[in-house]
Amino acid sequence: MGTTQLEAVAEPKYWHLRTVLTEALESEFSVGEILPNERDLAARYGVARATLRQALEQLELEGRLQRRRGVGTTVAPPRVGVAVGSEQHAWPGMPGDGWEPADSELAVPPAHVATALDIDGSALVHTVRRFRVSHGQPVAVEVLYIPSPSVPELSAIDAPSGPVRARAVLRELHRLALERQENAVELGSAGADDAKALDRLPGAPVLMVTTRYLTAGRTAALSVATYRADTCRLTFGESGGLEIHHGPEARAS
Amino acid sequence: MGTTQLEAVAEPKYWHLRTVLTEALESEFSVGEILPNERDLAARYGVARATLRQALEQLELEGRLQRRRGVGTTVAPPRVGVAVGSEQHAWPGMPGDGWEPADSELAVPPAHVATALDIDGSALVHTVRRFRVSHGQPVAVEVLYIPSPSVPELSAIDAPSGPVRARAVLRELHRLALERQENAVELGSAGADDAKALDRLPGAPVLMVTTRYLTAGRTAALSVATYRADTCRLTFGESGGLEIHHGPEARAS
Repeated sequence: MGTTQLEAVAEPKYWHLRTVLTEALESEFSVGEILPNERDLAARYGVARATLRQALEQLELEGRLQRRRGVGTTVAPPRVGVAVGSEQHAWPGMPGDGWEPADSELAVPPAHVATALDIDGSALVHTVRRFRVSHGQPVAVEVLYIPSPSVPELSAIDAPSGPVRARAVLRELHRLALERQENAVELGSAGADDAKALDRLPGAPVLMVTTRYLTAGRTAALSVATYRADTCRLTFGESGGLEIHHGPEARAS
Repeated sequence: MGTTQLEAVAEPKYWHLRTVLTEALESEFSVGEILPNERDLAARYGVARATLRQALEQLELEGRLQRRRGVGTTVAPPRVGVAVGSEQHAWPGMPGDGWEPADSELAVPPAHVATALDIDGSALVHTVRRFRVSHGQPVAVEVLYIPSPSVPELSAIDAPSGPVRARAVLRELHRLALERQENAVELGSAGADDAKALDRLPGAPVLMVTTRYLTAGRTAALSVATYRADTCRLTFGESGGLEIHHGPEARAS
């Protein structure tokens, strides 16, 4: 076992296979094409099924392959660029921001969110759940946490729940003057609910984007958004239109 | 096999174990503490070694555990926040930007970089390699691509190579008036060289940050930076000091 470990460190078999497969994807396959099944691929490259799977997982993580139950493994299109930060520093829910409000309720936020909002751990905040769809695919889910002082004139009468309520909460938030927003991106894994909404399996790698909306020196709202890491390239900047791809398809074009 | 697959979809064993381990990490362990070995852990939770490893890999991906050869598995400290974008939109290599220039040479860039720079595929560009160290740990490696027209007065005489040459190239670049920068973040995996520089194994998940530096409407330089995804949280925004953590340690504090 010690020897196996050492060999694996020098150049893991699956890593070599990944390189070989990357070249094959560039030269022999086109976007959307279905790859041969695992048994045939393993035979073709003379590797164990486990090694093949590891290489395929790697290529999926790199956004070059997509694996879907019932369909098989297909060559992935270039990642979709989704604008996250912008010079405009707009509030969430402004027209054309690409997000669909789904629901809103009053709830106790997770402890780390309460800390970030600088509120008491047992205080209720307005939570707004939203979805983002790009090119017909679900690409992100978001939970927005809005402390009550940020929406002081919000009334519970007109729209008690659902997307209508979510829109009402956001509309109230827009009355505040937004000073700026701060974003942070890190790697995470999809929990059961997020995975379902994003059409992935639990544990799938995701890009977690935390956005702090600041007004008059304090955090008026906090957003925790979960983006599919296999299909998304997050863009920050004025135009949000950075069009560089690392995928083989982009290089071939 | 079909049945196994269906069960796996409902709730994979490793995912359940991951949840159990997350709770154990929060309640029983502190940052830096070494976990029991795999054999003991597998016995303690009544799972196969393969399942345990999958759960540990998951927690490593989430930045909650660190696994190092010769040390074992330790509870990870909260991720380090590293500022990527800023309102100042500074050129690379300005004082205090946290990067160490390592080398510079004239080379043909990868095809997708040439496309992004809108230059001929066979044209030589100045490439500058830099490293970023945070809290004594290597956190990122970068290759900057600078077309010759961006540094027209650069002379080859004084500093033909090495960090001195890299600094000379950057100094010349600073003569241009920077209009703005655009950033994009996506998930990638470390190639052999980057993995070595970042003290990871090839294939380790990384956050790839592509930055386009624009001046007078054209791309004066393009940076492709590779950040360790296990230890880094990338921050964008004026202060760059977004201090929210998703790790169990942060929640416990």
